[in-house]
Amino acid sequence: MSMRIGIMGYGNLGKGVELAVKCAPDAELVAVFTRRDPSKLQIKTPGVPVVAAAEAPQWKDKIDVMIICGGSATDLPVQTPEYAKYFNVIDSFDTHAKLPQHFANVDAAAKAAGTTAIISVGWDPGLFSIARAYANAVLPNGKDYTFWGKGVSQGHSDAIRRIKGVKNGKQYTIPVQAAIDRIRSGETPDLTTREKHTRLCYVVPEEGADLARIEEEIKTMPNYFADNDTTVKFITEEEFVRDHSGMAHGGFVLRAGATGENGETKHLIEYSLKLDSNPEFTTSVLLAYARAAYRLAGEKKFGAHTVLDIAPTYLLPSSAEEQRAHLV
Amino acid sequence: MSMRIGIMGYGNLGKGVELAVKCAPDAELVAVFTRRDPSKLQIKTPGVPVVAAAEAPQWKDKIDVMIICGGSATDLPVQTPEYAKYFNVIDSFDTHAKLPQHFANVDAAAKAAGTTAIISVGWDPGLFSIARAYANAVLPNGKDYTFWGKGVSQGHSDAIRRIKGVKNGKQYTIPVQAAIDRIRSGETPDLTTREKHTRLCYVVPEEGADLARIEEEIKTMPNYFADNDTTVKFITEEEFVRDHSGMAHGGFVLRAGATGENGETKHLIEYSLKLDSNPEFTTSVLLAYARAAYRLAGEKKFGAHTVLDIAPTYLLPSSAEEQRAHLV
Repeated sequence: MSMRIGIMGYGNLGKGVELAVKCAPDAELVAVFTRRDPSKLQIKTPGVPVVAAAEAPQWKDKIDVMIICGGSATDLPVQTPEYAKYFNVIDSFDTHAKLPQHFANVDAAAKAAGTTAIISVGWDPGLFSIARAYANAVLPNGKDYTFWGKGVSQGHSDAIRRIKGVKNGKQYTIPVQAAIDRIRSGETPDLTTREKHTRLCYVVPEEGADLARIEEEIKTMPNYFADNDTTVKFITEEEFVRDHSGMAHGGFVLRAGATGENGETKHLIEYSLKLDSNPEFTTSVLLAYARAAYRLAGEKKFGAHTVLDIAPTYLLPSSAEEQRAHLV
Repeated sequence: MSMRIGIMGYGNLGKGVELAVKCAPDAELVAVFTRRDPSKLQIKTPGVPVVAAAEAPQWKDKIDVMIICGGSATDLPVQTPEYAKYFNVIDSFDTHAKLPQHFANVDAAAKAAGTTAIISVGWDPGLFSIARAYANAVLPNGKDYTFWGKGVSQGHSDAIRRIKGVKNGKQYTIPVQAAIDRIRSGETPDLTTREKHTRLCYVVPEEGADLARIEEEIKTMPNYFADNDTTVKFITEEEFVRDHSGMAHGGFVLRAGATGENGETKHLIEYSLKLDSNPEFTTSVLLAYARAAYRLAGEKKFGAHTVLDIAPTYLLPSSAEEQRAHLV
């Protein structure tokens, strides 16, 4: 039983879903939808049509799950509730503060239409949320830590590029190894923002720009850099393209907890990811949850869900019997 | 809403559940059941009755979940289906090869009685099964590795103690760091038993025993030690009691996988546990799944389940809204 996948939006995520479908034994790509001119978009899978986003509703009965590959700031708050009217949908909405509102909007649309939606899928939110949930459930007396990196933060890179005199820029978030080592050694420190991550910025300046001012503006920028130890390196456009086009990322979720009469017995749960490509991994997660949405829809479990609402068994192409025999 | 917990069997696991109930905001211990003479058993929680196992059926309406703390070899195959006639039940059945049969037996009993059972709960099987399932789902093109230790293997310790001239013995399973490092560095090696774990045995010999023979018998024992690099150390009974009474354990689940057009993009998922007390951690997991069983029973989802069938949300005392706000 193959699930028929649609991709809404063909950026890094859309391209990643296309690759992930190829690796899956039970998925086929039916169409890619775009807000651009479809005739100008070349995709990698031969024979799969590129369709104008506006025509998506006509594909209602030809697609089992639509994976919405837009951005969280402006695309997904509109797109996910909209397409939930026609399709089972998956998105990677990652604005934590607005998650309850997004969930409510998608839930209302999906329940009205009789579709299944899973939102905020990926690795954080996503697999890291799951790691936090399990760790909290088994060690209620404990403390969570999430570290990101080494990897590019899009938001921080954007902030650098908004500075006058900056032609291009990229920001790497780097976890502080000493902090991770302290937790691994059994401590449960209260860590400041500065103690958890450092920030490394590669900046291509415009010709004649005041480098000292740019560096100062970055390092003192509130919310983004002022609370971290930040390093700024100026490089050429050539170096930028050559050395900083990668999309590697990763991170760590740790929970240090205690059990026993007086909390004298210590335990450490650690979950970590080391990813050569953030979008390719994220979309592999999206596709696994597309499988879950497809099955939940078959069970008439309509409305919005997060990864915490989905049992692991729904993510796998194998049967429950095979899973019990080989994975449990 | 507090769930009323019963403990069947008061060994290391039963004692651990008793501690875990104290840490949980939503659980209370109602009774401990034993096959021993109840009047001779002293438990730690004041005011909680110790009851003969034979009287358990009379507690049918006073207990929401019975956590069965017996052994997998002979206790659980009988006890779990038996008590599923009266209670929602949790067990830690860990004989992988017999899991399908055990599942079927418990499923039949629970469905007939209208109860909910979750079997094979703990960390392996249990949290490690979950880690394997998620990792397989998101990286279908990849390879799994599970390492155990450093920690005591009860089966291997028993095997040592059956040797003539051995008064006492304990065996530590130790993961080979070099193997883990290879996987972490991006390799996906085929590892033999010998390349994955070493075995370290502490043996208290009987007076006048032939130490060379004992060491040889251990190191060449098929299935248990012959396929590993095994070290045997002879110690006194005093040293044994002083240094080898701990129950620390842990382990690692790794999945190295690839995405991309030609599998050129590499990813590594790692889940690890470092536990001061194997039974106290295991029972913390049992209690989290007791919460899930209680809720599933409320939804009339009767029959047997494994951890792969349970969504993370069921394990937490918080509401789905709180989870979306703080954990996703």
